[in-house]
Amino acid sequence: MANLEMQTLAKERANPPFDVEAMAISLHGSKERLEYKRRVMQELERIPAFFNDDIYDLTKDELRVRTFIKIGHIVNWLQKEDMATFRQRLELISILDPGFWTRFGVHLGLFSNCVASGSTPSQLAYWASQGMLSCHHFYGCFGMTELTHGSNVQGIKTTATFDRDADEFIIHTPELGATKWWIGGAAHSATHCAVFARLIIDGKDHGVKTFVVQLRDPYSFDNMPGVTIGDIGKKMGRDGIDNGYIQFTHVRVPRAHMLMRHTQVSRDGQVFEPPLQQLAYGALLTGRVMMSIDSSNIGKKAITIAGRYAAVRRQFKSDAKNEHETQLLDYPIHQRRLMPLLAQSIAFQYTGYQLSHMLEQMNEQLSSLEPGDPRLNEAIELLKSTHAASAGLKAFCTWGTLSAIEVCRQSLGGHGYSSYAGLAPLYADFAVHCTWEGDNTILALQLGRALMSAYEESRKGKKQGKALAYLNDIDAVLNYRCTSEKDLDTLAGVEAGWLTASAHFVKVAFDEFQRYLKAGDSREVAAEKCSQLRFVAGSVHTSGFIFRQFRAAVESMPDNNDGVKKALSTVALLYGLWQMEEKSGFLLRSGWLKPEQFDYVARRVTELCAELRAFAIPLIDSFSLSDFVINSPFGRHDGDVYRAYFDMIRRNNSPLKPHPYRDTLVKPLLNREIRETVSASDFMSIDDEIKEIQNELKEAAVSAQKKA
Amino acid sequence: MANLEMQTLAKERANPPFDVEAMAISLHGSKERLEYKRRVMQELERIPAFFNDDIYDLTKDELRVRTFIKIGHIVNWLQKEDMATFRQRLELISILDPGFWTRFGVHLGLFSNCVASGSTPSQLAYWASQGMLSCHHFYGCFGMTELTHGSNVQGIKTTATFDRDADEFIIHTPELGATKWWIGGAAHSATHCAVFARLIIDGKDHGVKTFVVQLRDPYSFDNMPGVTIGDIGKKMGRDGIDNGYIQFTHVRVPRAHMLMRHTQVSRDGQVFEPPLQQLAYGALLTGRVMMSIDSSNIGKKAITIAGRYAAVRRQFKSDAKNEHETQLLDYPIHQRRLMPLLAQSIAFQYTGYQLSHMLEQMNEQLSSLEPGDPRLNEAIELLKSTHAASAGLKAFCTWGTLSAIEVCRQSLGGHGYSSYAGLAPLYADFAVHCTWEGDNTILALQLGRALMSAYEESRKGKKQGKALAYLNDIDAVLNYRCTSEKDLDTLAGVEAGWLTASAHFVKVAFDEFQRYLKAGDSREVAAEKCSQLRFVAGSVHTSGFIFRQFRAAVESMPDNNDGVKKALSTVALLYGLWQMEEKSGFLLRSGWLKPEQFDYVARRVTELCAELRAFAIPLIDSFSLSDFVINSPFGRHDGDVYRAYFDMIRRNNSPLKPHPYRDTLVKPLLNREIRETVSASDFMSIDDEIKEIQNELKEAAVSAQKKA
Repeated sequence: MANLEMQTLAKERANPPFDVEAMAISLHGSKERLEYKRRVMQELERIPAFFNDDIYDLTKDELRVRTFIKIGHIVNWLQKEDMATFRQRLELISILDPGFWTRFGVHLGLFSNCVASGSTPSQLAYWASQGMLSCHHFYGCFGMTELTHGSNVQGIKTTATFDRDADEFIIHTPELGATKWWIGGAAHSATHCAVFARLIIDGKDHGVKTFVVQLRDPYSFDNMPGVTIGDIGKKMGRDGIDNGYIQFTHVRVPRAHMLMRHTQVSRDGQVFEPPLQQLAYGALLTGRVMMSIDSSNIGKKAITIAGRYAAVRRQFKSDAKNEHETQLLDYPIHQRRLMPLLAQSIAFQYTGYQLSHMLEQMNEQLSSLEPGDPRLNEAIELLKSTHAASAGLKAFCTWGTLSAIEVCRQSLGGHGYSSYAGLAPLYADFAVHCTWEGDNTILALQLGRALMSAYEESRKGKKQGKALAYLNDIDAVLNYRCTSEKDLDTLAGVEAGWLTASAHFVKVAFDEFQRYLKAGDSREVAAEKCSQLRFVAGSVHTSGFIFRQFRAAVESMPDNNDGVKKALSTVALLYGLWQMEEKSGFLLRSGWLKPEQFDYVARRVTELCAELRAFAIPLIDSFSLSDFVINSPFGRHDGDVYRAYFDMIRRNNSPLKPHPYRDTLVKPLLNREIRETVSASDFMSIDDEIKEIQNELKEAAVSAQKKA
Repeated sequence: MANLEMQTLAKERANPPFDVEAMAISLHGSKERLEYKRRVMQELERIPAFFNDDIYDLTKDELRVRTFIKIGHIVNWLQKEDMATFRQRLELISILDPGFWTRFGVHLGLFSNCVASGSTPSQLAYWASQGMLSCHHFYGCFGMTELTHGSNVQGIKTTATFDRDADEFIIHTPELGATKWWIGGAAHSATHCAVFARLIIDGKDHGVKTFVVQLRDPYSFDNMPGVTIGDIGKKMGRDGIDNGYIQFTHVRVPRAHMLMRHTQVSRDGQVFEPPLQQLAYGALLTGRVMMSIDSSNIGKKAITIAGRYAAVRRQFKSDAKNEHETQLLDYPIHQRRLMPLLAQSIAFQYTGYQLSHMLEQMNEQLSSLEPGDPRLNEAIELLKSTHAASAGLKAFCTWGTLSAIEVCRQSLGGHGYSSYAGLAPLYADFAVHCTWEGDNTILALQLGRALMSAYEESRKGKKQGKALAYLNDIDAVLNYRCTSEKDLDTLAGVEAGWLTASAHFVKVAFDEFQRYLKAGDSREVAAEKCSQLRFVAGSVHTSGFIFRQFRAAVESMPDNNDGVKKALSTVALLYGLWQMEEKSGFLLRSGWLKPEQFDYVARRVTELCAELRAFAIPLIDSFSLSDFVINSPFGRHDGDVYRAYFDMIRRNNSPLKPHPYRDTLVKPLLNREIRETVSASDFMSIDDEIKEIQNELKEAAVSAQKKA
């Protein structure tokens, strides 16, 4: 028979204001994507290696073994599915097992993409023939970061010196700080590495290029001569990845191992640089886009756990006459904690889709370009704006989701501290997104700088694209005002507020920058001095950007679609207003919002949280994450949380397991013999004895003197 | 020879604007406390069991063993040192090893304090004679929380039913949800438990009382009959603690095992309740005070790591002509990230001291009271205000430090994700503070409710104490305004802003509460409906409270004290203004700050960060945390971070260790034989064969028909 928790969750599902399946299809983009996801969830759940009931108890070493076994499975699909489908599979895996996703992603997403986008056709054919695409006698890792220089690629110190006589490059780690560091897959998996190193020819430094270097023999798995590899050990999370360090001591590779699609080195050591350096880095954007999408997915996983538990967890009675205690989800403060995060996870999804679309467009344009193509400028514009948008979104989406996970974890009360609840491991796994592939703060500042440049251009009359259209009409935008509370009730009204606030801080940052320039600072110094304002501009702009994508997606839906549009409009409005409250200082400073209107924003957020609460569980259901993927008793679909939690604890900590240190430590301590400490008083006669000895000596001396 | 990093850190120490030893003495309260701390650090570092170079690699099971060994050492000091000194030792241990601190603290701080404060004299003498104070044949745990009810003590479901004939209580767990849960020490250490259970006599429920129940025989360490104990396994952090669950099945204890200082049960089952129920809970405040102090200490540990690393880490050149890259600490944005957290760790310290002082005063007053004492009302007032203040400070200090640790961790860039950097484990260990011993959100709301009550009282003419003095003159306080930027340059000016903002939100929350009451809501429902405003009131009040303690401490210092006062004034001003910026929406809403003054606040925060940056390293040095306590290569006193990091990685991940799954997994995958998949075309003749079979069957049927 269903217990109270199960009955409660069933009741939450009784009368959704929308068709849950229609909502699920809408949120997944299509019925096909949704069904494929369901198929993959079922498929993986049935493979023993993907069994994850015991995953939270695995040590780092055990987790690495388990993760490697999964690689053996994924290569089967890699060879059979087309890349678009396979990417959907990987997206699901990123939610299920972030460490595995990354470990495989280093080979596929970083190494192989890097080689594919940097190779000439014959180079690519060669590496494919070596087994790169099938992980056959081949596994790649990505040797960019070093001990003292991370994502600051220009600071890299590893050298690749051209030996003209041998037609080879000599790859070398000149000092400890140049050790390749954090290299995923290096410790235990990789046979080859894409090494970022300074190209040196005849003593001249040509900057950082990429070289494929073999690390190990695939048959013996012994290191190649001159290659030192170490394990960098325990991490905060994602312990399934075997990150390592690599030092090269005069390792020689043929000249053709330098990736030469962009820069070429000829037989006689001439260097041909590409006309546009930026084009070489387009491939790095993929990671950022994936992290924005991952922010949405992981946010959904977290809120599935916290939201379902909040529905079944009861605490205190709001009225003594009630039969049961009150559901946490019925407390306004708990709605305030969770509903905005539910909205955020959906908001990030639309932004992720949009960013992904921008990237596809850009890649298409770039790949169709021939040298001297008149559309080159257009492509570069698109590259710049995608670059800036992706920088800001990577930073603020990953930050947003990281704190969402922590809020969800704390919302479970004490149980959130149990690993089995799933949120603590999720936090530990997710946290790395904030610092890898560009530290979030640096990326936010890059966006800030791009916004200032765009503002400067627009002042000179250059039209900005869609994402920055508010700069085209900035004088009007700066003077938008929230004239009535009604403006806060519509998506259009809220959007106006974000435009004004964004425009205000872009302008303020730029003006400050100009002031420093006029005072004689260099552009570099001036930019650093106004970094806080750049950061704020990036932050406000990104909140507005995310809200606008959400609004656009909702408004493009057909009016009559099973209640989906209406529900998502509420969600979008909550997201926009909640962010306004979070960043209220900036909204107030911009002048768009007046201090006394602040109260209305706060009240509306509370009300919208209550509206969303009414359909929170059906909305969470529409995320379509199976119990297997969620892997938390608190997020179970059936609501039977306590029995499942207790059982999971017992399965992983068997009551039959004997006490591991009862006889060696516990019993000896508790039953130790406590002896009386020897104290000074036990030696009360010592001073008499001293006197006696002294007297004897004195007498002896006297008697000796007498004798003498 | 000192490398660049070491030279850099030495240079940072060259010309401090204050005497570092004088600063250290001032921050530690006295020369004696500082010297005792140094002695304990040295003492512990030399004990093999406290060796912590390998600590980040220990599995949960290994950590529990290591932690238990430390208990064997700590009991020696427990028996020799007076309690005040021993508490200082424990404070240091809380910084060094939070898991060990808690594991021992459950016995000493929770169990023993609970028994000591709840016992009659003869009960206390009895439990002492059983070895409670020396952990001899005795180890205690604290059985309050249950699976479905945590710190909500009134919801507890375990029963203690009086059997009058036997003069015993029967302790019983009636259902799964009543299982004692999260009980530290239960899984592997405890012989006794202070069990919170509902007192039932003749079917009547007398509420929750405390009973000492023996769990195990100390000699055999076998469970007592009717006691079921289990391990609850892996946690986010503090894995050195053996948290467990306990189920009681009709376990009998003598009547005298109920703690009877407050409530008594006589031989014939009569219940005598204390005149003032609140007095029974004073002991629970100690934990909150310790958590506020811990927030300061752990904040200092985190900023020692992040601050020293920021001084030696160099990245990019702000000017191509510079010899070296720029220190991270010289970037304004990095100052913005770290300097406020440095200020916060010191601000929390003064608040922690002050709260500790309030608690001591209160305990003195309470323990000197006799029944009918005329000072009872005064004591109750003190209890109420200490309760409210400690609730808010526990919540906002632990939240503040938790996010400070994360910001510090991210400020290390990629390296912050390594466990060896120490910040990820610190986060995992610290995070539990936000949910145990009262969930932070609930505590913040309790403070909010206390503020509304105080406001209501003060409107009726009742004078409020020092912490809430702003309510006594609220009409004037509400109308304070920041009339000039000069107000933002002085501690007094900034304090005025906090008073106005605090008063504003207390009043707004109360007015809202009244509106709901007038509309017909019950007090309970009305309080829930205005919970967001209560929360904001608690938040703003606490920021102001912390700032005021800091200001008072600084201003009470002698003017001529080796530059200490001047430096700390800067730190206090930064704290106050940074918090204003963080909560700018509320400051603007209160009317004290005008939107255009916001820019000045932001500018001053940036400037004060730069001022503080100049003496950040000497200030961090004055925290006097040894390399042993810090246990992070990035926070080393000598600045030799990279060599130390590399060496630590190699000590804990020996290059000599063979690859653990090379032959079983890696080589088989990489060198697998890839066979051609069988495809439909391999069976091209199948359809011919089908036809043939069908024909044969048809012919057979025809011939059979012919025969028939």
